[in-house]
Amino acid sequence: MAVIQHQINLSAKPRGFHLITNEILDKLPDLQEVETGMAHIFIQHTSAGLSINENADPSVRRDFETHFNRMVPEDTSLFEHTLEGPDDMTSHIKSSILGHSVSVPVTNGRFNLGTWQGIYLCEHRNSGGRRRLIVTVYGD
Amino acid sequence: MAVIQHQINLSAKPRGFHLITNEILDKLPDLQEVETGMAHIFIQHTSAGLSINENADPSVRRDFETHFNRMVPEDTSLFEHTLEGPDDMTSHIKSSILGHSVSVPVTNGRFNLGTWQGIYLCEHRNSGGRRRLIVTVYGD
Amino acid sequence: MAVIQHQINLSAKPRGFHLITNEILDKLPDLQEVETGMAHIFIQHTSAGLSINENADPSVRRDFETHFNRMVPEDTSLFEHTLEGPDDMTSHIKSSILGHSVSVPVTNGRFNLGTWQGIYLCEHRNSGGRRRLIVTVYGD
Repeated sequence: MAVIQHQINLSAKPRGFHLITNEILDKLPDLQEVETGMAHIFIQHTSAGLSINENADPSVRRDFETHFNRMVPEDTSLFEHTLEGPDDMTSHIKSSILGHSVSVPVTNGRFNLGTWQGIYLCEHRNSGGRRRLIVTVYGD
Repeated sequence: MAVIQHQINLSAKPRGFHLITNEILDKLPDLQEVETGMAHIFIQHTSAGLSINENADPSVRRDFETHFNRMVPEDTSLFEHTLEGPDDMTSHIKSSILGHSVSVPVTNGRFNLGTWQGIYLCEHRNSGGRRRLIVTVYGD
Repeated sequence: MAVIQHQINLSAKPRGFHLITNEILDKLPDLQEVETGMAHIFIQHTSAGLSINENADPSVRRDFETHFNRMVPEDTSLFEHTLEGPDDMTSHIKSSILGHSVSVPVTNGRFNLGTWQGIYLCEHRNSGGRRRLIVTVYGD
């Protein structure tokens, strides 16, 4: 059983939901060394999250942004932790709702995603900058 | 360390929250080959999710459906991606809130769930059809 | 590849969001036996959850409690499953939104968390008592 671990520094993204499957795969040339196993992708931040969702229609990612802004409103009167602005505390909350990691089965040395699945970076800050991932792949 | 991986095709379920622990275990006769480790259950779709919750009282599953319909309302005026109907975009959002995988510790060749825990299929589409899982079990 | 698994019984916590990174590490002296791998922390309950978020400012944890009480209101007229009180069904819902496990990369025998990340116990019941975790660490 092999364990491969890499740090990946994503390019900076604007606020919103972004497909990053290919940006991850480009930095994982040794994924094919694991025939059967798992890939775990972890974000080392608390104001951006990771998720898996539809990989084709950009309107899905826009609707995600719309919904999350409505479900977690930037109303600073509701929160104490707003020193960095109205997108501060809401970004922490959104990131815990969506989660800080995704895990994907690996089959025949590839991510075994469904036809319509892609990996999302969920950037909740107005200026989040470059985000750092730790990717761990393990299996036979 | 062993790695076991199976594709499981669930029976079609109506919209709502469904206990699927036994349907998974029935398709995992080799779970007992892993004495200590992990089981990862992944759904290859973007409009249904997986979760872990109460395994006894059906009213819990009904209340989940009630709450998620209220928290993610089927108001097509809010969303762009509604080509397949009012349950289209909302299903994508609900599935990312609940998540596309659950992972369960394996102890003595069995899922080490709490007494009251079961695995849920969260079917958000009115007619989602059969859903496909990839189950990966690994450990010693 | 090694697999280490422990049951950890947390001290009882009041309702709210609590940093438990150090309480977990205190019970994991053998974490350093895994140089590169993963740690999976699982809660065996359906009315409390686990998450990863900001580890410094207590106002973040208070704001989490405020937001989740607003997003999942204790309005018993909305739910059937309220036998144990208004915090019964809402705790089940909150725990599935936040999730029943967190997984953290292990690097050089330590949790490879970001600078500002800590592990949260999300206690949704008014009197949840002691919560039980199953921690599985695996890798080389």
